[in-house]
Amino acid sequence: MSPPGLYDRPPGTDDAKLIDIFYPGDQQSITYGTKSRVGIGGMEAKVKAALWALQGGTSVVIANGTHPKVTGHVITDIVEGKKVGTFFSEVKPAGPTVEQQTEMARHAGRALASLDPEQRGEIICSLADLLTEKKDEILSANKRDMELATTSGRLSQPLIDRLSLSSAKLNSLAIGLRQLAVSSRDSVGRVVRRTRVANNLELEQITVPIGVLLVIFESRPDCLPQVSALAIASGNALLLKGGKEASNTNRILHQLTQEALSSHGVADAVQLVSTREEVEDLCRLDKLIDLIIPRGSSQLVRDIQRAAKGIPVLGHSEGVCHVYLDNEASIDKALDIVRDSKCDYPAACNAMETLLIHRDLLRTPLFDQIIDMLRTERVKIHAGPRFASYLTFSPSEVKSLRTEYGDLECCIEVVDSMQEAVDHIHKYGSSHTDVIVTESEETAEQFLQQVDSACVFWNSSSRFADGYRFGLGAEVGISTARIHARGPVGLEGLLTTKWVLRGTGQTVADFSEQGSMKYLHENIPVPQKGFS
Amino acid sequence: MSPPGLYDRPPGTDDAKLIDIFYPGDQQSITYGTKSRVGIGGMEAKVKAALWALQGGTSVVIANGTHPKVTGHVITDIVEGKKVGTFFSEVKPAGPTVEQQTEMARHAGRALASLDPEQRGEIICSLADLLTEKKDEILSANKRDMELATTSGRLSQPLIDRLSLSSAKLNSLAIGLRQLAVSSRDSVGRVVRRTRVANNLELEQITVPIGVLLVIFESRPDCLPQVSALAIASGNALLLKGGKEASNTNRILHQLTQEALSSHGVADAVQLVSTREEVEDLCRLDKLIDLIIPRGSSQLVRDIQRAAKGIPVLGHSEGVCHVYLDNEASIDKALDIVRDSKCDYPAACNAMETLLIHRDLLRTPLFDQIIDMLRTERVKIHAGPRFASYLTFSPSEVKSLRTEYGDLECCIEVVDSMQEAVDHIHKYGSSHTDVIVTESEETAEQFLQQVDSACVFWNSSSRFADGYRFGLGAEVGISTARIHARGPVGLEGLLTTKWVLRGTGQTVADFSEQGSMKYLHENIPVPQKGFS
Repeated sequence: MSPPGLYDRPPGTDDAKLIDIFYPGDQQSITYGTKSRVGIGGMEAKVKAALWALQGGTSVVIANGTHPKVTGHVITDIVEGKKVGTFFSEVKPAGPTVEQQTEMARHAGRALASLDPEQRGEIICSLADLLTEKKDEILSANKRDMELATTSGRLSQPLIDRLSLSSAKLNSLAIGLRQLAVSSRDSVGRVVRRTRVANNLELEQITVPIGVLLVIFESRPDCLPQVSALAIASGNALLLKGGKEASNTNRILHQLTQEALSSHGVADAVQLVSTREEVEDLCRLDKLIDLIIPRGSSQLVRDIQRAAKGIPVLGHSEGVCHVYLDNEASIDKALDIVRDSKCDYPAACNAMETLLIHRDLLRTPLFDQIIDMLRTERVKIHAGPRFASYLTFSPSEVKSLRTEYGDLECCIEVVDSMQEAVDHIHKYGSSHTDVIVTESEETAEQFLQQVDSACVFWNSSSRFADGYRFGLGAEVGISTARIHARGPVGLEGLLTTKWVLRGTGQTVADFSEQGSMKYLHENIPVPQKGFS
Repeated sequence: MSPPGLYDRPPGTDDAKLIDIFYPGDQQSITYGTKSRVGIGGMEAKVKAALWALQGGTSVVIANGTHPKVTGHVITDIVEGKKVGTFFSEVKPAGPTVEQQTEMARHAGRALASLDPEQRGEIICSLADLLTEKKDEILSANKRDMELATTSGRLSQPLIDRLSLSSAKLNSLAIGLRQLAVSSRDSVGRVVRRTRVANNLELEQITVPIGVLLVIFESRPDCLPQVSALAIASGNALLLKGGKEASNTNRILHQLTQEALSSHGVADAVQLVSTREEVEDLCRLDKLIDLIIPRGSSQLVRDIQRAAKGIPVLGHSEGVCHVYLDNEASIDKALDIVRDSKCDYPAACNAMETLLIHRDLLRTPLFDQIIDMLRTERVKIHAGPRFASYLTFSPSEVKSLRTEYGDLECCIEVVDSMQEAVDHIHKYGSSHTDVIVTESEETAEQFLQQVDSACVFWNSSSRFADGYRFGLGAEVGISTARIHARGPVGLEGLLTTKWVLRGTGQTVADFSEQGSMKYLHENIPVPQKGFS
């Protein structure tokens, strides 16, 4: 198979790397293959021709039109500026490439991971202090972003809400960071399991950082210090890719983060990727990045899940959350919980999208009060097919029961029983957060057991589904994935484990039928997190 | 955008499903769109034409040549028998489709998850009993597979070794299963974290099954009861896809598994997928399958990681394990550990592939004894570039320092120090299992801390990297992924968690600056696993 472009060494050798952009000055760093093999030879001649064309003022790309990674439209891809093959350029861009940033981050990340937990805590506290000290500068950068967003008119109101910072938001950020600095003391290197495998053969499972994280976020710049603090606390290196709309705010928040990191000589552990970098190109760096965390719209998350080849993605693509009002619901609790779940922050993923009402509640005072409350709060109501069939004059019927409105809108649907509510949630929900309001403990416990979502709540607002409110400190995101981390993800989601075995020369042959040793497999107690 | 084939309802509506194979008798189950929209209408006419052609004896596929999911070679894909669009067929195949099997499994899996832990334990013990009781039948089915494999000559010796069952293997399987039945008692529904969020607002994080697992395995039929027992213990539904070469053995092992399951009415929770199903097609069932676990060659795992779109894959694509002999290594330990790591079972992923030797050991008795031992054990030696440069007459030089031989072969390379060994392992290893042999505790602890692999061992054989030897009961695989589960994966890797919040009407507004409530976030101790 022919190679997809120019490599720095003969393709197929241990350390050969595909060169994305080739500058004439780089020629010494390339080793061409000496043996002439079919399909590999001839690259040196191609490079000479390309450089000759470049000197004459012609842009050149060396690419492979039949390589399976290419969609089959090499020429159009090149014209559209996609990273295909090797591009020959006279001009070296300013600043490091994203690959170099990743290497710098991994290197500094290892130094960060080898610091004492107290030192990582100091970095986070110093970042928290900077958020308060430099509040004016942050808010003025944010104001510039807000003005640009408003005048350009390209962002919807919910996105503009997410973009906005305030004194209160910065204060609550700083509180979360300090909480994290304390709770993270026993995160990295913590023993989670200890087993005496045999005499003088002891096994430990300990927590370690995942490696290099890539966090891609839209609009919300408060995400930057939160995620940075989590990466610092967990000893991970971090690449941050923010949206253009928040570039001023992100720039200063990243400067403050590096300022905090530099107090222990690890400023490079957190890198801000240029807004010019395409998300799709970042998602292809599967040898360099260990986990991608998208924070933003469902569309962003879906796009990244599709683009990320071989890199795990932690995130929720949708938050279609339900509140189910049981026939034994308390009026007061129902009103408070529905109002809070829908209206507290409608743009959030943990806001209610569908209200399920037990049939017996129709034409009761509770029902009328709920509808009045939603009208007072200016919530636009869409009717599910069954709800519509009960009404003489119903609101517009929903297009899909799977809609995430993300705004002051919701769907109302009628169900015959708690069981039907569970079935509805399994069929149309996104397994994010679902709530039952009832005074019956028995019904509640059945709902909590049966509903297969990341968060299931009884008599409390869906808006509690959040790392800070759960007491996890800062939050890295909410995951509706079913593996690794589920629901609000704090520090634990950024750690993995490794197994450490200490022996005195044991072999598995010693434990064979003819061998002299026996497995003991005794669990040895370990200190419980939070109670050390 | 035009749809990729025929749907049972108008495409875009909530419950529309793409039909893979259409039989003339199925026509009643389809609802066509009533409104004529551009690009969606006209399907009814196409179906009539297709049925008319089918009656005339012509095979028909309705597909979309411009749909982005299609690689661009629709006609060749159809001719090669790939699942593209909707295929019209006169003949209904015998048995359920894989989609129907998945639904059956999910349904029975929910019943399995709602059993008492003791009942799931009974099923596993009864499977263990059956492995012993029906030993003769199993071994005779396995003999048929072995004979076919040997006469066909298409399997390499390591693969044939993996295919082979024996009395001893079945016994050790049964022991593992009974161990699992006991240790799994407190797996599902276990509280892992409990927090008093505020007065009368309590949060619990509890373990729950992941959902529907797909395990794809080659050759090793002993994998089937192991993985089935793990799925049963963890309350997961399971689809098993075995290799053709083990079909006789797999069939009887699956029958015994269903026999054990049927004692509690959940026989369908474990399904054996027909050998005709293509792995690529199974990897596309992302709405139906929650986790794919490939067990087999590195090539199989890599293929599945590439094919699995949106479904997480748990597995290791390579096991390039190192043993590093430090300059302070004990001769006896070094000999035992190198022999066991390489020769005990060379086809295993935890076997040693590269032996790193400290430079000071060259031309010492230890070095000579190691080489003599490897020769006696008939291990073919390949020389790393540095090792070759030290020798007058060296063995053949390695092509790549990243080779997984999977046979009685290994690479030897020389390093200057423990630090250089760590760097070598990071550069060429697969982060699976790496071992240091040394009498210096200080050097050992540095190696254990720095090497970033799933398993890091001091003075013990790499072959201990195994769920059974770690005391995890049966093993679902070894993961070199960095998230969710790492290293040998037992039951824990098949569980996820959900968050259960029990309140009395609380809203997040109650906790705002104007609100009446305060977060407490008190951790409440929970019973530790294995010490209940």
